[in-house]
Amino acid sequence: MKALSFVDVNQKQLVDKDKPQIQNSTDAVIRLVKTTICGTDLHILAGHVPEVPKGSTIGHEGIGVVEDVGSGVSNFKVGDKVLISCITSCGKCHYCKKGLYAHCEDGGWILGHLIDGTQAEYVRIPHADNSLHHVPKGIDDDSLVMLSDIFPTGLEIGVLSGQVEPGSIVAIIGSGPIGMAALLTAQFYSPGKLIMVDLDDNRLEMSKQFGATHTINSKDPEEAIKQIMDLTDGIGVDVAMEAVGYPQTFDICQKIVAPGGRVAVIGVHGESVELHLETLWIKNINLSTGLVSTYTTPMLLKTVEAGKLVPNELVTHHFHFTDILEAYKTFENAAENKALKLIIDFE
Amino acid sequence: MKALSFVDVNQKQLVDKDKPQIQNSTDAVIRLVKTTICGTDLHILAGHVPEVPKGSTIGHEGIGVVEDVGSGVSNFKVGDKVLISCITSCGKCHYCKKGLYAHCEDGGWILGHLIDGTQAEYVRIPHADNSLHHVPKGIDDDSLVMLSDIFPTGLEIGVLSGQVEPGSIVAIIGSGPIGMAALLTAQFYSPGKLIMVDLDDNRLEMSKQFGATHTINSKDPEEAIKQIMDLTDGIGVDVAMEAVGYPQTFDICQKIVAPGGRVAVIGVHGESVELHLETLWIKNINLSTGLVSTYTTPMLLKTVEAGKLVPNELVTHHFHFTDILEAYKTFENAAENKALKLIIDFE
Amino acid sequence: MKALSFVDVNQKQLVDKDKPQIQNSTDAVIRLVKTTICGTDLHILAGHVPEVPKGSTIGHEGIGVVEDVGSGVSNFKVGDKVLISCITSCGKCHYCKKGLYAHCEDGGWILGHLIDGTQAEYVRIPHADNSLHHVPKGIDDDSLVMLSDIFPTGLEIGVLSGQVEPGSIVAIIGSGPIGMAALLTAQFYSPGKLIMVDLDDNRLEMSKQFGATHTINSKDPEEAIKQIMDLTDGIGVDVAMEAVGYPQTFDICQKIVAPGGRVAVIGVHGESVELHLETLWIKNINLSTGLVSTYTTPMLLKTVEAGKLVPNELVTHHFHFTDILEAYKTFENAAENKALKLIIDFE
Amino acid sequence: MKALSFVDVNQKQLVDKDKPQIQNSTDAVIRLVKTTICGTDLHILAGHVPEVPKGSTIGHEGIGVVEDVGSGVSNFKVGDKVLISCITSCGKCHYCKKGLYAHCEDGGWILGHLIDGTQAEYVRIPHADNSLHHVPKGIDDDSLVMLSDIFPTGLEIGVLSGQVEPGSIVAIIGSGPIGMAALLTAQFYSPGKLIMVDLDDNRLEMSKQFGATHTINSKDPEEAIKQIMDLTDGIGVDVAMEAVGYPQTFDICQKIVAPGGRVAVIGVHGESVELHLETLWIKNINLSTGLVSTYTTPMLLKTVEAGKLVPNELVTHHFHFTDILEAYKTFENAAENKALKLIIDFE
Repeated sequence: MKALSFVDVNQKQLVDKDKPQIQNSTDAVIRLVKTTICGTDLHILAGHVPEVPKGSTIGHEGIGVVEDVGSGVSNFKVGDKVLISCITSCGKCHYCKKGLYAHCEDGGWILGHLIDGTQAEYVRIPHADNSLHHVPKGIDDDSLVMLSDIFPTGLEIGVLSGQVEPGSIVAIIGSGPIGMAALLTAQFYSPGKLIMVDLDDNRLEMSKQFGATHTINSKDPEEAIKQIMDLTDGIGVDVAMEAVGYPQTFDICQKIVAPGGRVAVIGVHGESVELHLETLWIKNINLSTGLVSTYTTPMLLKTVEAGKLVPNELVTHHFHFTDILEAYKTFENAAENKALKLIIDFE
Repeated sequence: MKALSFVDVNQKQLVDKDKPQIQNSTDAVIRLVKTTICGTDLHILAGHVPEVPKGSTIGHEGIGVVEDVGSGVSNFKVGDKVLISCITSCGKCHYCKKGLYAHCEDGGWILGHLIDGTQAEYVRIPHADNSLHHVPKGIDDDSLVMLSDIFPTGLEIGVLSGQVEPGSIVAIIGSGPIGMAALLTAQFYSPGKLIMVDLDDNRLEMSKQFGATHTINSKDPEEAIKQIMDLTDGIGVDVAMEAVGYPQTFDICQKIVAPGGRVAVIGVHGESVELHLETLWIKNINLSTGLVSTYTTPMLLKTVEAGKLVPNELVTHHFHFTDILEAYKTFENAAENKALKLIIDFE
Repeated sequence: MKALSFVDVNQKQLVDKDKPQIQNSTDAVIRLVKTTICGTDLHILAGHVPEVPKGSTIGHEGIGVVEDVGSGVSNFKVGDKVLISCITSCGKCHYCKKGLYAHCEDGGWILGHLIDGTQAEYVRIPHADNSLHHVPKGIDDDSLVMLSDIFPTGLEIGVLSGQVEPGSIVAIIGSGPIGMAALLTAQFYSPGKLIMVDLDDNRLEMSKQFGATHTINSKDPEEAIKQIMDLTDGIGVDVAMEAVGYPQTFDICQKIVAPGGRVAVIGVHGESVELHLETLWIKNINLSTGLVSTYTTPMLLKTVEAGKLVPNELVTHHFHFTDILEAYKTFENAAENKALKLIIDFE
Repeated sequence: MKALSFVDVNQKQLVDKDKPQIQNSTDAVIRLVKTTICGTDLHILAGHVPEVPKGSTIGHEGIGVVEDVGSGVSNFKVGDKVLISCITSCGKCHYCKKGLYAHCEDGGWILGHLIDGTQAEYVRIPHADNSLHHVPKGIDDDSLVMLSDIFPTGLEIGVLSGQVEPGSIVAIIGSGPIGMAALLTAQFYSPGKLIMVDLDDNRLEMSKQFGATHTINSKDPEEAIKQIMDLTDGIGVDVAMEAVGYPQTFDICQKIVAPGGRVAVIGVHGESVELHLETLWIKNINLSTGLVSTYTTPMLLKTVEAGKLVPNELVTHHFHFTDILEAYKTFENAAENKALKLIIDFE
């Protein structure tokens, strides 16, 4: 079969590999139908995630059809169409019993990270019963791919950790795919104001179609903070979501949060930040971090089925799997290509 | 001034009364701009609420303009336009400190009940600072009147007690004004299915415009239960709201609730019901009751301001205050008049 | 091996049976070390639980040593000492993912109910990884047996559903083993008053040793209600737990609950009750029911390890397994024998 | 009357002042019976809180007797014995309605800060109905003084924000009065392990009497972190409370928190800290800050009444008000004097 291999730092290649086999009785092998590329994949290729073995297949999102199952798999059978969760969970460790699948003792984020991933014609999924989802009829395939990672991430780590409530004022710093997913799922809870902040005017413009009530370009961060404070009568926002991963974007969040408000850090951070406890200690704020657990995937499937969410709105480009190197080029220059999420088709 | 007096059982009359005066330093006197009639007012007139003094003014909803304030009132001044909450709260007793204003030791539901109410040109509001709300610009007056009672009731006692979540399946038994308010505010939380149940096909039809995804006529209750179970693959609903107040409608709720589900009793009940603990003990359900506390009024004002809720959709008729007896006739025959909520104008 | 067989209604016998074998890869076979008898077992023997097959082994509590495991079991190995949960859970169905193991689609309460139980020298445990618990060092065996059912039941269905908080006033109607378990675990949350209500003065006396601050004999229910209201300045209790299962005990609960309070139904009910919605509708109360899910077993093990709970305090009698028929006689006449929980030893 | 005046930076003096008078109808004037000194008072005297006016009276804790009330005060009358909350709350602003009294628009922490405080024979309390508490019989005066500030602070900002649960592992960095109050109130929720961390071996020894299960001297912070990780099998603590206010103590917290755990910042911080988002982003942690709102004072009074908490355990020294300068000397050298909290008596 064909697979995208992380050959070495800054070297990726479409190579021939053996089709994966069932290794444990709880495994399933999935024939991919669609996958996508995540910002994390770019970090892996750039060498920022050193634990990824050279030569392994990357990718942790996708949908497909069950090709084979181990004897211990009971929720799925050969031929079932499935959504692959970016998080593998055993369902029986300390963390899984608390719903914290991100920290599963025999799983977590391993796909396209510690084991071969989904940018290949076939992928082996450990603990299949807890790591795959049945696909309700009537949901389009592109939308389903969006539910592997970005929508549960935006919802769990942004919206739910940030406790968005009807009428609340929410600012999202960063309007990339994750920020947009947070923007769309925040609307499950009917916030009053949704302020998108980014450096890219094109993305800010797109965010308006996705429900942003206000957009602010943050090339001058102090000016952006001032505008947000003005929008909130000087009080600040109820929820500030950091959806980029830099000290500068974190800093905006800590400066705009209202007394009693929440800062939800969704971004993947590579360095420490300065936390202004000398002003925040008295403000009764809450700051949360986290990797997605995908415990909300069943909820998301129901909201998509009910028409409350149209995940494929984030899809800007399509490529066939044989053109995945070109897809990467497009995604690496997302701003100039006005790209958010790309779909890679296998069929 | 003119006021609608509860002269005696089944006797109401528009009479002349003295304009109310400030009695305590925390009082305000409000000149009414609009009021409405509640189902509870009909119960009072029928003699079902014996603690209401003969000769008192009924009504507990409305908007107006501050005419006078006591020396201890600091949130409001003469000339302010205000929303009158149906619940009076002192803000300083045991219950108020827990947000349970319904049980305020010097308030609760007293307006048009234990003291003169809002179906009059002027009304005295005790504990004005905690019992009135400022009115944001840009919200129409008819919508505001709907926030005195029915929307907080539907939201607090139906939607929040019932814990409606994104994707959940909700059934509302009763599509009168309160059921409709629950239907509209349930959508703050993006449920997957909203099943309205009533005996009146006209109201069921209206409920579709307000967001119902399914409607069921319950003239044959067992058949209605069967239809709901079919809609939920035999599992039952996540949330069943009782919005009528009869044993029969309660019975539907207890028979359709899924394991782990909630029954939210919004209706005012005049007699006991049979609770089938012999089947429910094992189902891990939750049943809640309650009088509204109106702690959600600020949240509701923000959602209306943001366009997430259009309360005036429930208004079907308008009358001038001088024609209030005619308004009562219309409301007493709500079904045949296709009436939901009526607005009584003073100007 | 020897097993206690439910031969027919009112007929039980210690019989020879084949030792159970692994049937599915997720099974374990456990050699029992200790078990106990539950009130439910008496109901089964009396024929009140018709789905129990004639000839099956009863019992759903106990501790033992792993004798054999299927190939899919990863948390346990032969020789491990384990606590058997009364609830079997697959860890991968809709309900298990919500922590509602009581309603597991391939489990729930099946042990000694739909499949052979623990009153035998060996028992087969399906879904062993999710249905057994490792035993921390330093906890005595009698205490562990109490964690199979009654302590999680008292904690989950009584204390947590009833939301006991520091300083709150709690009444527990019924001072049998479950009521006592609720009494002991309620103290995890430092309530202000713990009022035990029962017909048996001996048990009320015992409850004082377990932390009851007040005891009331309810042979005159109206008088008992009056005493409770007097103890609460006429306001009622924050939490009323029903731990018996009769309409009379439920009725006490609904009459003593304060506005904003909770009624937690722990008892197994065989008939419907009259729910006084005509007085409760306005009281903002919450009523919960449920079968235990045992999701709190890890928490309970930690509290026992820390010395915050001494479950063996409820053990009043010991018998060897060969004398189990005599143990049943003692338990059937619990009041006269001053029995709470009996330990059946296999060694 | 006599009052302790903040004359200038590092200058305090017992001076004669006019007895305070009712200024607003919601004021009360209290004759002090007992007060105490808080670490914050030392910061004020050192000039670290520049908004405190020169010449004002410091102190924000104490109990006393009502000497006079304004016409709008209804909860209290002359002669009532009262507990003074360190937080003044109007009960009718946006924040007060959410229970966030710390941020009251006409109150918050103003006592001994923006207005004259409690280290005087008499003090004026604005918004008396919401800022004073009735004193239940049977609680000793020294215990009551401890409820003005430190116990609500430890409970709200440490224990409740940190979500201490039965069986959980809690580390408290700092065993001064606030850390000790957190230690004592954490036990309301029956944690499994309570690890106290401090530089002062004497205080660590005292903490054992107050319920600490483990104590660690942090003079070598990395070694302390190692010991805590060893105590938790390398996983970390469920709750880490920062009760000092320095970057070094915050740093310990962020390094010992388990995946899914909470960091509760109770300390008053004067400078920013380095937050290691590069390791924390993936750990699903929660960090909270805050000034106390004293919404738990009624709960605390009930737990003291029930004997679940003995606040006077923290009192190490007594002084008469005329000797308050000596009391300050003792408190300024708390470590060498083995002082935790001092009581200043007026009678």
